[in-house]
Amino acid sequence: MSKRYRVGILGATGTVGQRFVQLLEGHPQFEITAMAASDRSAGKLYSEACAWKLPGAMSESVRDLIVRPIEPPLDCDIVFSSLPSSAAREAEEAFARAGYPVISNSSSYRMDEDIPLLMPEINADHLGLIDIQREKRGFGKGFIVTNPNCAVASFAPPLAALHRRFGVEAAIVTTLQAISGAGYPGVASLDITDNVFPYIAGEEPKVETEAQKLIGTFTGIGVQKADFTISAQCFRVNVIDGHTASVRVKLRDVGTLEEVVASMREFPSLGLHSSPANFIEVTDEPTRPQPRLDRDAGSGMTITVGRVFPDNVFDYRFIALSHNTVRGAAGSAILNAELLIDRGII
Amino acid sequence: MSKRYRVGILGATGTVGQRFVQLLEGHPQFEITAMAASDRSAGKLYSEACAWKLPGAMSESVRDLIVRPIEPPLDCDIVFSSLPSSAAREAEEAFARAGYPVISNSSSYRMDEDIPLLMPEINADHLGLIDIQREKRGFGKGFIVTNPNCAVASFAPPLAALHRRFGVEAAIVTTLQAISGAGYPGVASLDITDNVFPYIAGEEPKVETEAQKLIGTFTGIGVQKADFTISAQCFRVNVIDGHTASVRVKLRDVGTLEEVVASMREFPSLGLHSSPANFIEVTDEPTRPQPRLDRDAGSGMTITVGRVFPDNVFDYRFIALSHNTVRGAAGSAILNAELLIDRGII
Amino acid sequence: MSKRYRVGILGATGTVGQRFVQLLEGHPQFEITAMAASDRSAGKLYSEACAWKLPGAMSESVRDLIVRPIEPPLDCDIVFSSLPSSAAREAEEAFARAGYPVISNSSSYRMDEDIPLLMPEINADHLGLIDIQREKRGFGKGFIVTNPNCAVASFAPPLAALHRRFGVEAAIVTTLQAISGAGYPGVASLDITDNVFPYIAGEEPKVETEAQKLIGTFTGIGVQKADFTISAQCFRVNVIDGHTASVRVKLRDVGTLEEVVASMREFPSLGLHSSPANFIEVTDEPTRPQPRLDRDAGSGMTITVGRVFPDNVFDYRFIALSHNTVRGAAGSAILNAELLIDRGII
Amino acid sequence: MSKRYRVGILGATGTVGQRFVQLLEGHPQFEITAMAASDRSAGKLYSEACAWKLPGAMSESVRDLIVRPIEPPLDCDIVFSSLPSSAAREAEEAFARAGYPVISNSSSYRMDEDIPLLMPEINADHLGLIDIQREKRGFGKGFIVTNPNCAVASFAPPLAALHRRFGVEAAIVTTLQAISGAGYPGVASLDITDNVFPYIAGEEPKVETEAQKLIGTFTGIGVQKADFTISAQCFRVNVIDGHTASVRVKLRDVGTLEEVVASMREFPSLGLHSSPANFIEVTDEPTRPQPRLDRDAGSGMTITVGRVFPDNVFDYRFIALSHNTVRGAAGSAILNAELLIDRGII
Repeated sequence: MSKRYRVGILGATGTVGQRFVQLLEGHPQFEITAMAASDRSAGKLYSEACAWKLPGAMSESVRDLIVRPIEPPLDCDIVFSSLPSSAAREAEEAFARAGYPVISNSSSYRMDEDIPLLMPEINADHLGLIDIQREKRGFGKGFIVTNPNCAVASFAPPLAALHRRFGVEAAIVTTLQAISGAGYPGVASLDITDNVFPYIAGEEPKVETEAQKLIGTFTGIGVQKADFTISAQCFRVNVIDGHTASVRVKLRDVGTLEEVVASMREFPSLGLHSSPANFIEVTDEPTRPQPRLDRDAGSGMTITVGRVFPDNVFDYRFIALSHNTVRGAAGSAILNAELLIDRGII
Repeated sequence: MSKRYRVGILGATGTVGQRFVQLLEGHPQFEITAMAASDRSAGKLYSEACAWKLPGAMSESVRDLIVRPIEPPLDCDIVFSSLPSSAAREAEEAFARAGYPVISNSSSYRMDEDIPLLMPEINADHLGLIDIQREKRGFGKGFIVTNPNCAVASFAPPLAALHRRFGVEAAIVTTLQAISGAGYPGVASLDITDNVFPYIAGEEPKVETEAQKLIGTFTGIGVQKADFTISAQCFRVNVIDGHTASVRVKLRDVGTLEEVVASMREFPSLGLHSSPANFIEVTDEPTRPQPRLDRDAGSGMTITVGRVFPDNVFDYRFIALSHNTVRGAAGSAILNAELLIDRGII
Repeated sequence: MSKRYRVGILGATGTVGQRFVQLLEGHPQFEITAMAASDRSAGKLYSEACAWKLPGAMSESVRDLIVRPIEPPLDCDIVFSSLPSSAAREAEEAFARAGYPVISNSSSYRMDEDIPLLMPEINADHLGLIDIQREKRGFGKGFIVTNPNCAVASFAPPLAALHRRFGVEAAIVTTLQAISGAGYPGVASLDITDNVFPYIAGEEPKVETEAQKLIGTFTGIGVQKADFTISAQCFRVNVIDGHTASVRVKLRDVGTLEEVVASMREFPSLGLHSSPANFIEVTDEPTRPQPRLDRDAGSGMTITVGRVFPDNVFDYRFIALSHNTVRGAAGSAILNAELLIDRGII
Repeated sequence: MSKRYRVGILGATGTVGQRFVQLLEGHPQFEITAMAASDRSAGKLYSEACAWKLPGAMSESVRDLIVRPIEPPLDCDIVFSSLPSSAAREAEEAFARAGYPVISNSSSYRMDEDIPLLMPEINADHLGLIDIQREKRGFGKGFIVTNPNCAVASFAPPLAALHRRFGVEAAIVTTLQAISGAGYPGVASLDITDNVFPYIAGEEPKVETEAQKLIGTFTGIGVQKADFTISAQCFRVNVIDGHTASVRVKLRDVGTLEEVVASMREFPSLGLHSSPANFIEVTDEPTRPQPRLDRDAGSGMTITVGRVFPDNVFDYRFIALSHNTVRGAAGSAILNAELLIDRGII
């Protein structure tokens, strides 16, 4: 039986915080022992402070935890953070400096040179940055790792598969993103009913730069960004959960359609607790992937790819879909923690 | 006061047929005198045969027209067709052969070499194909003209503006199309609620080939397709009316952002009755265009472009929006008829 | 040609404020000369302060008005108020005391004994309260009139028709209310997508009490509430505009179905500028009324009633629909002002 | 370990048929051994004949079953039927006559005097009709039992609880029903986007009469309908799954609010495999029940009731919610089968 770790959640009452609570229920390695949220919530019971917005009831085991301020110490071994980026920069450093492993879903540190931007299946070797980070920042045993933006999580896996096998020269991506990505209350219903909203603050640059770092190479002293160009246009659409990405790619060494599909299908999953059976599932069904039908594949941790075809302008086109608050947020952070334990870093 | 023409509508009971009825109400040049629809409807009053699905009541002036079979003769001078493509090929030829100008919104003849695929602002000179067509097909005074697919109508105008000024080398387009484009009953609610549907039968090839012909050059003996490559991925989203297109373009002679915007803003509208004040409106507002707020610009005949920015992979990116059943269907066909009258062809 | 009045709008940047601006464009009697909004907006141009959320562009004539604080004096003859009720009580009294006619859409004063709660077709004689009000409150020529809650506006007209003809003993009402009723940002998309929201703060008591006052009798010294009991359950549904009410009524003197329908159809409209041709339209079409198809009937000022049938428990059942931000808010307030001018009170 | 029964599904490819397949996966008592569907599907593999529309993949164990025509014999012990009512009447009788227990979700036989209309928690004693039925119809060991309409399933449980404890005199019900209730393709997206659809064919009479029979009394020779009057108005709203009912009730012996709530909370669940822990859950949260958050309570088998308050016209009002394709269709049928086994009838 595996060792159990006591975990705390920063930003515990928000949309992603709630998803952490849901995904950690019954997890064999983790037990939630601390909740932290903004001053408005601190001091209340979690069940009072949190307006639970996920289907199903809040887990009994967390209802009576008292919400703490967002500062160390917290009664836990590991900290998961889903703080808004404004609050995250200072708070996450404080926890790392106080010796906690900080597994962050926030955007604050993702592009810092010494901070791993992790998807375990793609770049587990970027964990090498942790030693560099500790030295540079004077952290003791604490450290920060991050997972990518939820939109990146949808298309980076097939892009990584293609880059590894054929080399990607350029990618043009258009995302159709779910409303849950904006948290609660988030997107106003008047902005999205009978509508498409063509703007998500800060998203397009994030998508472009994070993908290059995520698929980049750890050189021993840092991460060298992947050398493809990338363009992203990001839309909000009327979908609860599940980000869809429409992708066109230009390859350095063009393979056949079969080879392209195989590069994705064969991209290995890991054997961690939250790893799905298939990291990337490729469907031949012409009307898939669809967010409502495919977002929960692999308990929300599988990326579903479909409509892989040769393209008129670039080499191939395809559609990629992932669950934005599971694989794109809390689920990825938990997988990162599982990887860190597996590698002996926690 | 302008001369009035008596018009008939083929496929009068469908979604686009209803839009014809709505847009022709009070039109100074046209009066609906004949309705034709499938055998199931023929013989009934229009008010009985047609399940009216547009906001507002059906025009009194058409309620008591008796629906006729889809074959000549019809009691009218001009025929507007919104037949499904299966029925259109045979029926439209029969009307042209019987001497009627056939202004078609169907896809059947759009790509035939001797058939104009018209947007008056872009390629009015393609009307030169009519003489060629009459000779080749042995039509007398009848003829067929078509307007493009509703998705093409959203992005072809800015693309034409760029092509005329800078030369377009390649375009990568992703469309987010409204449900009204599929007619009634059309898209099942279970397919589009909390969902994006990634497939529209036959749409992607249509979008790619029609754009090249539409923006092509009339050489005196035919239309030479525009020499850019184009890639389209087409999605259905949960929007009633209004197709949005996300576009990246590579230009032959790259201009500044200001020149790019000016090429669109200055692209002239025509002075026809249904012409909007601005053919292409370019907004600087970062959250626009949005289907619900912008589809009715210029009474549904203006294309709204926004988020024009330099692109990382190609030269520029932008978003284009148009009303799919007005500019993308019935409204464009009516504008084509106005052009034909203006040029003395009708 | 009618005399023109200069009007000011309190709460000019909100959802209802914007609807005032839209409906007053081109109005023969009113010209907007003043805008007032919260401190955050005061001092800015209206075009800068207001995030315009209605289809179509903001009227040119108001773009450059400078937004003023919500306090007298304002450069206008009449004040329309769409303030949130927290701000309305104090501000509206201040304007009335300063001599302005205050035509309010806020809920603050609706149930005050000396304040008319008006729908001109139903209870124009309640204007008799104005003299009582002026005396009681020490207003000079200023005064306050109000229009009912948007949900009441949907079903009170047919209820008034029935009450006048047959006497209503009891009414049980269930409302399905549009999201625009909550303003902007208002209803969170996560609360209403693939969902029904069963609670609208304070709505059920408002609906119940306002209907009784609105349909009550002016006795010369006050308004005696109508003597029917009424029960309301209020839901928010995923509709942009248009409140639907499901109604069961028990009558004192039961008429036939034909008489019941006739009592509604024959309820007179007034000849004011914003009066629709039909105040209450009764449809026999079994699938109507529907918000998307019927909310704009009579430019949003007609109430559409359908599915009038005998009921198993009470006497009759029917469905009533009205446009919640036109007939249910700004349009009703404008009609009230037109009535006040017509009666020589303004 | 419990005995396993081999089951066949009539109408196996439809929306409810698919829900049967999903719910029976891993069921300890049932194993799907036969699929039957219309001629169009017969002879194909189930995986070919069925356009799977539920989240998650089709169970591997049924993919290769060959779809049979809808007639006996079928290779199974028990038949579940989700046939459209047009086909159900003849087919279900044929199966019963051939000796199969027919557990039907169709409406055809629900109101026949000798056919049980069952919700096990409410009226298990109506099983007494089976002997009467066999004798009257000359069935051998075969028989037919039915479950109620999906809308009835949402509010009949709390109504039964009140009727048992206080006696219900009258109930006025307004339903807000999910689109999945209409099957696939079912409701057109143009009819329900930004809209409420006020008509469901045949629904209102079904709701009214079935509730009276379901809550009626088995007298030994038949079922005496409950002696309350009931009125239903039925709407379709833009929700995937989950029917909401707004209810007002007049009681014979009025209890306190606490007693009313207790009568529901204490209404016993059964210990069958598909029985939820709580048959009726009553929430005090003012914004619940909501379809998206509460439909899956008790794996879709719990009825969630909220907003229980005294009413102005009748005695109490409340809102009831249930999952329309689980508790309102396939789940209820499966529970009926479990009851029949438990009682030794199968």
